[in-house]
Amino acid sequence: MTDSAQHKTSAKLWGGRFSEATEASVERFTASVHYDSRLYRHDIMGSKAHAGMLAHQGLITDTECTAILAGLEEIQREIEAGTFVFRPELEDIHMNIEKALTDKIGEAGEKLHTARSRNDQVSLDLRLYLREEGAALQTVLSLVQQGFVTLARRYIGTVMPGYTHLQRAQPVLLSHHLLAYFEMFERDKDRVEDCVRRLNVLPLGAAAMAGTGLPIDRYFVARELDFPEITANSMDTAGDRDFALEFLFCCTVIQLHLSRLAEELVLWSSKEFDFVEIGDRYCTGSSIMPQKKNPDIPELIRGKSGRVTGALMGLLMTIKGLPLTYNRDLQEDKEPVFDALDTVKASLAITAELLDNLSFKTEQLLGATVGGFMTATDLADYLVRKNMPFRQAHSVVGRIVALCQNREIELVDLTVEELREFSELIEEDIHEFLSVTGSVNSRLSVGGTATVRVEEALERAEQKLGIS
Amino acid sequence: MTDSAQHKTSAKLWGGRFSEATEASVERFTASVHYDSRLYRHDIMGSKAHAGMLAHQGLITDTECTAILAGLEEIQREIEAGTFVFRPELEDIHMNIEKALTDKIGEAGEKLHTARSRNDQVSLDLRLYLREEGAALQTVLSLVQQGFVTLARRYIGTVMPGYTHLQRAQPVLLSHHLLAYFEMFERDKDRVEDCVRRLNVLPLGAAAMAGTGLPIDRYFVARELDFPEITANSMDTAGDRDFALEFLFCCTVIQLHLSRLAEELVLWSSKEFDFVEIGDRYCTGSSIMPQKKNPDIPELIRGKSGRVTGALMGLLMTIKGLPLTYNRDLQEDKEPVFDALDTVKASLAITAELLDNLSFKTEQLLGATVGGFMTATDLADYLVRKNMPFRQAHSVVGRIVALCQNREIELVDLTVEELREFSELIEEDIHEFLSVTGSVNSRLSVGGTATVRVEEALERAEQKLGIS
Amino acid sequence: MTDSAQHKTSAKLWGGRFSEATEASVERFTASVHYDSRLYRHDIMGSKAHAGMLAHQGLITDTECTAILAGLEEIQREIEAGTFVFRPELEDIHMNIEKALTDKIGEAGEKLHTARSRNDQVSLDLRLYLREEGAALQTVLSLVQQGFVTLARRYIGTVMPGYTHLQRAQPVLLSHHLLAYFEMFERDKDRVEDCVRRLNVLPLGAAAMAGTGLPIDRYFVARELDFPEITANSMDTAGDRDFALEFLFCCTVIQLHLSRLAEELVLWSSKEFDFVEIGDRYCTGSSIMPQKKNPDIPELIRGKSGRVTGALMGLLMTIKGLPLTYNRDLQEDKEPVFDALDTVKASLAITAELLDNLSFKTEQLLGATVGGFMTATDLADYLVRKNMPFRQAHSVVGRIVALCQNREIELVDLTVEELREFSELIEEDIHEFLSVTGSVNSRLSVGGTATVRVEEALERAEQKLGIS
Amino acid sequence: MTDSAQHKTSAKLWGGRFSEATEASVERFTASVHYDSRLYRHDIMGSKAHAGMLAHQGLITDTECTAILAGLEEIQREIEAGTFVFRPELEDIHMNIEKALTDKIGEAGEKLHTARSRNDQVSLDLRLYLREEGAALQTVLSLVQQGFVTLARRYIGTVMPGYTHLQRAQPVLLSHHLLAYFEMFERDKDRVEDCVRRLNVLPLGAAAMAGTGLPIDRYFVARELDFPEITANSMDTAGDRDFALEFLFCCTVIQLHLSRLAEELVLWSSKEFDFVEIGDRYCTGSSIMPQKKNPDIPELIRGKSGRVTGALMGLLMTIKGLPLTYNRDLQEDKEPVFDALDTVKASLAITAELLDNLSFKTEQLLGATVGGFMTATDLADYLVRKNMPFRQAHSVVGRIVALCQNREIELVDLTVEELREFSELIEEDIHEFLSVTGSVNSRLSVGGTATVRVEEALERAEQKLGIS
Repeated sequence: MTDSAQHKTSAKLWGGRFSEATEASVERFTASVHYDSRLYRHDIMGSKAHAGMLAHQGLITDTECTAILAGLEEIQREIEAGTFVFRPELEDIHMNIEKALTDKIGEAGEKLHTARSRNDQVSLDLRLYLREEGAALQTVLSLVQQGFVTLARRYIGTVMPGYTHLQRAQPVLLSHHLLAYFEMFERDKDRVEDCVRRLNVLPLGAAAMAGTGLPIDRYFVARELDFPEITANSMDTAGDRDFALEFLFCCTVIQLHLSRLAEELVLWSSKEFDFVEIGDRYCTGSSIMPQKKNPDIPELIRGKSGRVTGALMGLLMTIKGLPLTYNRDLQEDKEPVFDALDTVKASLAITAELLDNLSFKTEQLLGATVGGFMTATDLADYLVRKNMPFRQAHSVVGRIVALCQNREIELVDLTVEELREFSELIEEDIHEFLSVTGSVNSRLSVGGTATVRVEEALERAEQKLGIS
Repeated sequence: MTDSAQHKTSAKLWGGRFSEATEASVERFTASVHYDSRLYRHDIMGSKAHAGMLAHQGLITDTECTAILAGLEEIQREIEAGTFVFRPELEDIHMNIEKALTDKIGEAGEKLHTARSRNDQVSLDLRLYLREEGAALQTVLSLVQQGFVTLARRYIGTVMPGYTHLQRAQPVLLSHHLLAYFEMFERDKDRVEDCVRRLNVLPLGAAAMAGTGLPIDRYFVARELDFPEITANSMDTAGDRDFALEFLFCCTVIQLHLSRLAEELVLWSSKEFDFVEIGDRYCTGSSIMPQKKNPDIPELIRGKSGRVTGALMGLLMTIKGLPLTYNRDLQEDKEPVFDALDTVKASLAITAELLDNLSFKTEQLLGATVGGFMTATDLADYLVRKNMPFRQAHSVVGRIVALCQNREIELVDLTVEELREFSELIEEDIHEFLSVTGSVNSRLSVGGTATVRVEEALERAEQKLGIS
Repeated sequence: MTDSAQHKTSAKLWGGRFSEATEASVERFTASVHYDSRLYRHDIMGSKAHAGMLAHQGLITDTECTAILAGLEEIQREIEAGTFVFRPELEDIHMNIEKALTDKIGEAGEKLHTARSRNDQVSLDLRLYLREEGAALQTVLSLVQQGFVTLARRYIGTVMPGYTHLQRAQPVLLSHHLLAYFEMFERDKDRVEDCVRRLNVLPLGAAAMAGTGLPIDRYFVARELDFPEITANSMDTAGDRDFALEFLFCCTVIQLHLSRLAEELVLWSSKEFDFVEIGDRYCTGSSIMPQKKNPDIPELIRGKSGRVTGALMGLLMTIKGLPLTYNRDLQEDKEPVFDALDTVKASLAITAELLDNLSFKTEQLLGATVGGFMTATDLADYLVRKNMPFRQAHSVVGRIVALCQNREIELVDLTVEELREFSELIEEDIHEFLSVTGSVNSRLSVGGTATVRVEEALERAEQKLGIS
Repeated sequence: MTDSAQHKTSAKLWGGRFSEATEASVERFTASVHYDSRLYRHDIMGSKAHAGMLAHQGLITDTECTAILAGLEEIQREIEAGTFVFRPELEDIHMNIEKALTDKIGEAGEKLHTARSRNDQVSLDLRLYLREEGAALQTVLSLVQQGFVTLARRYIGTVMPGYTHLQRAQPVLLSHHLLAYFEMFERDKDRVEDCVRRLNVLPLGAAAMAGTGLPIDRYFVARELDFPEITANSMDTAGDRDFALEFLFCCTVIQLHLSRLAEELVLWSSKEFDFVEIGDRYCTGSSIMPQKKNPDIPELIRGKSGRVTGALMGLLMTIKGLPLTYNRDLQEDKEPVFDALDTVKASLAITAELLDNLSFKTEQLLGATVGGFMTATDLADYLVRKNMPFRQAHSVVGRIVALCQNREIELVDLTVEELREFSELIEEDIHEFLSVTGSVNSRLSVGGTATVRVEEALERAEQKLGIS
């Protein structure tokens, strides 16, 4: 064994039984510190609580505990100052910190790992991290919701076509359309909340996976770290990544919602729809076509829904078929979670900015409701009110529409006499029902697009966001 | 237009404006009745509530309502008797039922679709279905949990190796291992509950997607169908499939948990592990090798985790980038949900049976804890108790293990004198700590494998299941 | 054991060593005959070749062989006549046929399984099936290509906007756009061909997985079944599903290509684009909105890309981490392959029909090229030809576009004098370059949109399809 | 506009028409240079060929061309020396290089982008990169194959159990098992070769997506860059990512194959199987359990199959439903490809090392073939040779096995007399057929496990690798 290998062997904190040093290629392949260093703050937070408990239980002295806390704080300062040197051969953030601690404070540092394992730490750190990031996600989701609410308030009177099958269906308020996204992200917040509640359970104390014989107090640590519960089975704890999967799923649905918004923004900023102008600062140009102004942001957001979904799929597949308890495969949990979270947060943040930089073209939106027989359902409902069975009314109106299409005119262009040829139930008042605004404001059912309903929804939304 | 085309055109309930009949190939391609007929009961339930509301609001007469209810009930009886003829050219279960109703009761039937759309119905039916199936899933999850609890109770004294990295790590109680699965499925139940709570919202009343101008009462319908809430935005309602995604995710995680159990059962029934015997009735043989007895059930369950995950992947991709509100792509929601649900329910049910047909080989399990230095951590903890820093203790024990490996002996084979060469802290009492049972019962930390802890966990589990 | 269980035990062709019958629930859970019966023809084809070889090698007599062949043919006729009764308790198509054969011809039937296993058969049948279906896929891909070529020929003079980022970019020929799809499906055919070549290898003879000691002749069987090669390693053969994965991948990319076409058809049949009319026979209506005509076919095709991708995801996950050789998990290979294949074939077939029922609105297409500065690149290229560096030309044209936008005019609306204020290189001939047709026909680079290039491409495509 | 914004606006090479600078957050969100800088060498290679062509066609002067080539080479040297400063606000590698070139050589640099677009460049660079990486992948696949061949050669006489369903099935040669992996990776090489052939087509010249009016010569560039073909349709070219998908699929199947090997290595290094010892340098220890030696490398490789599959799923989803031609979503192509490629290459490389550091425990392997009735098929085949129908033979042997199980003995422990009670066809020679070595060497069918067959396979494999 070369000297350097010798050195390296002893550097490993688990090296006692090994007769040979780890191969450098293996260190590279297995190291995680280049990405799990992101967890340094949570690792230190967890170690401090653990040390406090060890002291409280008499497993270390108060002096040792004080040294550990001070050492950990110093390490945190060094990391935050950028002066801490991460060593890949120490594998992960946990071992890097523990080794640095021992280098600093000596023997007391060697006591920190009493009654805990790295699996414990990984689970703890990731839970602490996701609990925090769950809250951050809520905040940026609210920001996006706020963007929608602000737009909905600004454009409260604007009418536009509502679509099904990307065909104009019925006129709606733009604000009603925008508030649909408010609801989608509201469900996302709800899902994130459930996810965080479910992961907000202290894993520390599972030790290797069987629990420990040393007299630890898991409730003490839980209180220190503000966990309302502790995990119930040490073997389950060591192998469980449900919380990472569920967090990834929440991220996936958020990005999926964004992909639908993105699709609409791409459509709406096309020349054909021409419903919205995205501010220059939020578009980019073409390297070859001087006239181009492209909706890159929504396109990228839409594209990134694949990435986030891929992260979820990856972790599901990684976990498939693993026997209990911890298997090293589980190390593959963090990168997809980090990447998905970064992607979703960045996409939400830029969406919030983007919403602030949208100008809707109200004339265009209104113009698009003209033509296309968008009040045909109103005509059918008119007949229903006069007691024609809906299915007959639907058929009558279908035939009227066919006539109009042949003559290339609109419903409003037909005279009452012409309409009455289809049904004598139609009377002079019919034209009120065929106007776009009349149609919109007639839809008074709860959750409908009538202005009064949308106003109510808007107020509720503002209240929820605390901006009313 | 041929007569038959004429006939077919008029058969379509939306055919008014169309001048040509739908092509037969198109009917085949778009029809969903071959799978959505599964929702007949929920569709009828929803229609009855809707009809009741229409009558209550004066949109139909009480007589019409009575006719509708009777007609729907008759249709339900016909479907359940197998005498109902489903017609693919009527596309889906909704139109099949509505047409049959009108054929039965005439004009009143044509009024049923007043103020509602198929999108409304699809969303309603699927929510009603998943609410029910969510409860069914809980039940069968409990059944599986019960299987684990029963086994855990039966084998309470049995010791086995706990594994990490599929390497023997520390001795544990078999019951502790089994109860890890109890916890996993407990989380699944929790997730399903959240999912059902979130989907338990009445969508009906979104109508085409803008709400309706007819004076409906959504709260009336909600009460009838036992929905605590109604959806807030008609456009969101029409395009939302979050609840299907979330249900699929719940199914995916359940099947993932089953895949881990399956892996263990396959391992344990191998000749090499030889920990368990699966009853003959739950195994199959080989067409070519007469001696084979194969653990097909766990293998298939493990394999099916791909299928369920594929269903989730599929629906996520289907929804990606869809503009609001309803797009026909969303018709692809039901088959993955049905297939995943069927798979998960069948897998859980057969797992519950399988658990009842397992015989653990307690001698083998115990035997496997001998050798492999599984109490090395206990030796380290012994040193820690005598105030050696854990990291030093870990290193000392590592070297002791290396020595034993060289001499091909076990920790217990070393004399106290030999052990003391590594550390003078080791005393006569050491051998108590190195016994397998001593090790197990020392792990008294909450959630640990000590018998007393496992007994407590078992009682809690039995209480939760109501079987104590 | 009950009598019926007794009966069932003996029914199993592998039941010798089992003391108990298989549980009915297990039979239901493990049976595959409800879907693998689709392979009956390939199974019989394979068995006939196997029997022929057994006779040729003297492992059975010619009389036995003749009886087997006749029996198998009779079974095939029964299956095709719908009179064959499939028995789930016989698990799969292979055992159903073998049992029926023995019931028909007695002892000779019991010799058919000599020197082969079901794993052998599954692999063989699936390869035979996919070889055949690969060819079928090529045919229907050609049909779709033919649809594009026909349209491209019909609309050869039609100009439309080419898009990047869904923004109008440069004018192109509609035929050029359509032929882009020809190329995409050409690659698909190429990929399917490679896939079929790679799977066209005889697996039979791997037997249980170690080969057999009986004197079989694998080359004989290969010749009979027209396999150019035989597999090289029996253990690999038994556990290999690469060919199923690769076939699924081919299907996935095809459906992905279709999803892009579908998106365009949905866009183009929107009121906003209004580029194409889909024939009534290929659209459906709304249950509530009488005026709606929806592009359901493309929407469903687009949606089904999730389903096919989900099938690929599922099988990848199923295979992950399986030890050699055969594991029952692999039974989960057929359903995703069948479903994906059915979906892709149906989607392609309906697309071919749909293409025949498209009417492009040539006026609208041309109209959409006006406005939007689509010849800005031409103006830049004009300057480049006069030796202005491209990057400067791009910048100059960018500023000209900005001016036009401010004044709400088009490039052609600027006088030569106004243009010359931006660059003196601009001369009287400039307006030729700014016309849409001039722009299109200038793009003479190979693969470009100039009419002459598109004509050439069209001819090449027609030649490839044999329709010129 | 601030000065700095002014500066930034002009910095953008496409900024002419924009009145406002891009927002910093947008630059961060859209920039790709932090990952696509990996393509610098291919970008420069492509630009040099393009410049050569421009000069050849008279679009730039020879002097300009010389300046461009020199400038590009200088930039390449700077990048490789680490002195080049990448600027995120210039978005991507293409613009970074072009801007640096212009800064160096002035106006000539501004001519480089003549008749090409970034979409062109992205497609070209990625194809050049993957063509090269495809070859690299082949090399490392061969290295892994070599590892298997070396092991197969070293352990040629070693017998072990072959498994199906993880149950011992029939004895095989370890070398036969190892060579199964040779075959799997051979197919992978074949697939990569097809993929590279299909992507080895010049895209440059599609320009924005319609081709160009400038007199370029695509064949000239193709020759320079060694592309045998050029793409046929400029619109297809601009939006095509099939090659990235297919490359990802190849990577996915490779990692899937590795996951199966990994599973076996994990199993085999468990105490229960105890078939193989992984060198200390290729294992790691536990932070808490001093005795542990864990097979981390195979576990991580197995786990990473999720990651690679996730990358494939992500890109499939990203491309779904995109209209022609280029959409910014496609920028999400590179990161999954790079990550998957890095993962697969690293996994293969470490696998090759790992194989060199495996010691099989031949005694253990042989020992595992004893017991478990692994020669039961041989007994059945013995009866078949004596003309008993196979199905009867299977049943007879099944009953013999059942007897042995009851008496807890092996087949070889039965006397001939006892055996003859089951069938009189059994004679004195039977015990030859029931020995493990006899069984192995009897399997002489092509592809079978008989030593002579495995020797042949080994020689063929060595020849293919050029190491014979």
